[in-house]
Amino acid sequence: MCLFCKIIDGEIPNKTVHENEEFLCFHDINPAAKIHVLIIPKKHYDSFDVIKPELMANMTKFIHEVADKLDVRENGYRIITNIKEHGGQEVNHLHIHLLAGEYVGRLVGAKK
Amino acid sequence: MCLFCKIIDGEIPNKTVHENEEFLCFHDINPAAKIHVLIIPKKHYDSFDVIKPELMANMTKFIHEVADKLDVRENGYRIITNIKEHGGQEVNHLHIHLLAGEYVGRLVGAKK
Repeated sequence: MCLFCKIIDGEIPNKTVHENEEFLCFHDINPAAKIHVLIIPKKHYDSFDVIKPELMANMTKFIHEVADKLDVRENGYRIITNIKEHGGQEVNHLHIHLLAGEYVGRLVGAKK
Repeated sequence: MCLFCKIIDGEIPNKTVHENEEFLCFHDINPAAKIHVLIIPKKHYDSFDVIKPELMANMTKFIHEVADKLDVRENGYRIITNIKEHGGQEVNHLHIHLLAGEYVGRLVGAKK
């Protein structure tokens, strides 16, 4: 079972921000900005590259709810998702990063 | 009229990658990776934060088509969208960055 499936199962604890039947949002344990949360579907998908488009509609609605809960809509935020090696994907379960709480930095970081 | 609306109108030229009735994908003029394209809806929306979720379903389908055209699905890619000041949004017309062609770098860059 993958790391995020274990989090969904409760086998590994998480700091939950928001949750519904289909998605979970929790704080990243190694934040890259003042606010850094991950949004994942409860069903396992390897990445953004393999999902049905309709899932992103529901996920977008959920992300807007997360942005409300975190109170970041006025000042803004960044949404990132990584696919495979070139994207720098670290866990092979679709996850969307939401970064906020300050200017989160340039578009991409160092390549090493 | 905003910069990207002018591109859609053809007032400002672009290097088009893919296009349909609803979306346009073109090469970023200041690429942050070997492959760096922008995907925009032809209708103006200020950012990801203000769209209806259904738009993201269509946009996801379009992005998958772009990834096919660019032949980046096997090695991977990164998807980013910035919202307002904290996100580092530079043009106030919803645009999704797709970065690929090499390991594109760490999640975020320098904060200055």
